[in-house]
Amino acid sequence: METKVILTEKEMPTSWYNIQADLPEPLPPLRHPGTKEPTRLPPPLFPEALNEQEFSKERYIDIPEELQEIYKLWRPTPLIRAYRLEKALDTPARIYYKYEGVSPAGSHKPNTAVAQAYYVKKEGFKRVATETGAGQWGSALSMGCMFFGLELKVYMVKVSYYQKPYRRIMMETWGATVVPSPSEDTEVGRNILKKDPDCPGSLGIAISEACEDAFAHDDTKYSLGSVLNHVLLHQTIVGQEAKKQLEKIDAYPDIIVGCIGGGSNFAGVFLPFVKDKIEGKKPDLQIICTEPEACPSITKGPYTWDYGDVAGLAPIALMYTLGHTFVPPPVHAGGLRYHGMAPIICHLHKLRLVEARAEYQIPVFQAAVTFTRTEGILPAPEPAHAIKVVIDEALKCKEAGEKKTILLALSGHGHFDLAAYDSYLSGKLEDYEYPEEKVKEALTHLPKVQI
Amino acid sequence: METKVILTEKEMPTSWYNIQADLPEPLPPLRHPGTKEPTRLPPPLFPEALNEQEFSKERYIDIPEELQEIYKLWRPTPLIRAYRLEKALDTPARIYYKYEGVSPAGSHKPNTAVAQAYYVKKEGFKRVATETGAGQWGSALSMGCMFFGLELKVYMVKVSYYQKPYRRIMMETWGATVVPSPSEDTEVGRNILKKDPDCPGSLGIAISEACEDAFAHDDTKYSLGSVLNHVLLHQTIVGQEAKKQLEKIDAYPDIIVGCIGGGSNFAGVFLPFVKDKIEGKKPDLQIICTEPEACPSITKGPYTWDYGDVAGLAPIALMYTLGHTFVPPPVHAGGLRYHGMAPIICHLHKLRLVEARAEYQIPVFQAAVTFTRTEGILPAPEPAHAIKVVIDEALKCKEAGEKKTILLALSGHGHFDLAAYDSYLSGKLEDYEYPEEKVKEALTHLPKVQI
Repeated sequence: METKVILTEKEMPTSWYNIQADLPEPLPPLRHPGTKEPTRLPPPLFPEALNEQEFSKERYIDIPEELQEIYKLWRPTPLIRAYRLEKALDTPARIYYKYEGVSPAGSHKPNTAVAQAYYVKKEGFKRVATETGAGQWGSALSMGCMFFGLELKVYMVKVSYYQKPYRRIMMETWGATVVPSPSEDTEVGRNILKKDPDCPGSLGIAISEACEDAFAHDDTKYSLGSVLNHVLLHQTIVGQEAKKQLEKIDAYPDIIVGCIGGGSNFAGVFLPFVKDKIEGKKPDLQIICTEPEACPSITKGPYTWDYGDVAGLAPIALMYTLGHTFVPPPVHAGGLRYHGMAPIICHLHKLRLVEARAEYQIPVFQAAVTFTRTEGILPAPEPAHAIKVVIDEALKCKEAGEKKTILLALSGHGHFDLAAYDSYLSGKLEDYEYPEEKVKEALTHLPKVQI
Repeated sequence: METKVILTEKEMPTSWYNIQADLPEPLPPLRHPGTKEPTRLPPPLFPEALNEQEFSKERYIDIPEELQEIYKLWRPTPLIRAYRLEKALDTPARIYYKYEGVSPAGSHKPNTAVAQAYYVKKEGFKRVATETGAGQWGSALSMGCMFFGLELKVYMVKVSYYQKPYRRIMMETWGATVVPSPSEDTEVGRNILKKDPDCPGSLGIAISEACEDAFAHDDTKYSLGSVLNHVLLHQTIVGQEAKKQLEKIDAYPDIIVGCIGGGSNFAGVFLPFVKDKIEGKKPDLQIICTEPEACPSITKGPYTWDYGDVAGLAPIALMYTLGHTFVPPPVHAGGLRYHGMAPIICHLHKLRLVEARAEYQIPVFQAAVTFTRTEGILPAPEPAHAIKVVIDEALKCKEAGEKKTILLALSGHGHFDLAAYDSYLSGKLEDYEYPEEKVKEALTHLPKVQI
């Protein structure tokens, strides 16, 4: 009985899959935050190669060899059959999980972090600036920059900087410089600190600081860990591997489940499969994303134009959004607290190729503990949202007596999220209702875009 | 260029290798702590199968199929070529590391934890009691007991219970009950608390509590995470895999390096190779273990009879020891703070088949950061002791122009040890000299054994 499906390094995909080549309708363009006209990504912020990838229609984009060598430190990642979970649920469904927690940073984030660092280096730049909340993205990029000898400055939301020192130390061990945001190092930061020296910071402020830093230094580029097309592109190595692994055992998913914050983990897994659905090869493939009930952009937000960032400096995208000024309740799945959603995922949802669900965090943690106590792996709170849906679907299969094949995107382990588990296990975890009034208010601040 | 050598599940070893079949001289027997006569392990504490394995002379002992299925959740583990470290050191040496950090607990400990849980279950018992310091062993055994539906009670040293809550939460997530030791749950604990309600606890006290618990409950067995022969036996799956992996690329190590606390990680890797040295197939194989300068049992301790535990309740073994009452300085590599050493390793050292070195923790962390900044993986402080020696040996190869093949036992990641890295990076880390006077004092308390 084989538990894992393993690929050799020679079987690792050598190109990323670009969904833009196969979309039934093209993606609406990004719009400039000032002029509201169709725009590229701001060139001073992004390397040229990433700007090209952002809008490319090429179906496959080669992964540079130097980058493949780095991927091989932890890739191909295992595809694991969840025999023990299936048995505990007494379901005829076959559940497979693609596990990205084996990367040195413990999640899928390094797949794009090392790619972005590669292009920054290749185009002759020396520094990168980025923001991070709890530190998941900052640590992946710290590792990415380390591999290419790039300096990295991370603006870390101040409250996390002090409350969650471990990710900060990880970033420093890989060689990054980390400052609490708002900081004295940018004008944005200084202005905020003048008015409120005790400001706890926010992801919006940290983004503004990182962008100002990159604008102010000719040798510096900015880097974003999700949402954008090129980020999703880099993550498709995950789904392509999963597809090859399932082919090896003559399997194909009936259902694919992933969590969405900015959308890169989910997209990385399902994009290479949605192609088959578009082409009619697997028309009944169910592709389900899950988000927190406390921050339900796809399930409750309107499909409209909004800024990608809280400060209104980033390009405007057509997406499901709760309003760029919306501040979600403090659910433990920090990676899912984003007001909008990757435009590619929104577009595919609008085209009815993807469906979405929202989940409360208490049943999500219940599902996470069920997973930990059957499969042994303790998942991060973000993919635990997907585990909840996988369990629901597997129980439906039990009722219906259906042998469906379910593929779970298990984006990372929860070794840095144990305080959240403690809260759940001791019965202290709270749930947050959908903050309808706050969202209504935030939606009054949408940019006006005329098409 | 291949970075990792991967084995399929079908290539995973199906038996453990028992060095006792191939020792040039047999291992001296254990002695009873009371009578001082040759003894087995106390049967009320250990399952019969483990007691048999402890003294078996069979060369290969089958790994039960049910256990193989669990190993497959993370095994075979990768063997990785450290190209980037080699390049940074500009060495002609070829460095390979066998990485156990991909297990759900993040170390090699689950290899024996799941095996011990299996035999407890198989022999009809329902509960396990154990002790843990910082929580590495306790968390591995929590996972092990979870797989077999066994209850687990972990006595966790009180100071760690409160200072390092993350491992405690991990244990609870896997379903274990964890209490701070000394506890009110045992007579030993109650007596200590009566005298000193604020007692911070020690590993010695926790062992005594766990043993009392197992003695007091007919349905309960005790479990130990290192030192004993059967524990080392279970870890040999690691070295057998590494040997197969190296064979696949026509390589054989000239040097094997591992850290030693109780010795199970190091033994797991080198025992399948030392056989070749004993048989004269590879007489010049260098096998090097490293320990902290602050707790240098092999390099500075006498080879003599001593209790395995601080309380003097465990069997007496012939080993290198600093005295069972010796309390080592608080180096960050908590897993290496043991007064004695696995009798098998001591015996092989006495037979000059293994050599030993002691290292200070500051250069050890320097080596760990070099590794993190080249290979990407952030190692635990324990195997960082081995990395220090690997770098020394690789630099010797550079000087001599020798293309030696070096195998490193990388037993786990350091995601739970980031406070130690912070201390090092901020220049606050202190070194501890060998506490000669304390050891001298402790050595006056050795048991008197007449042979």
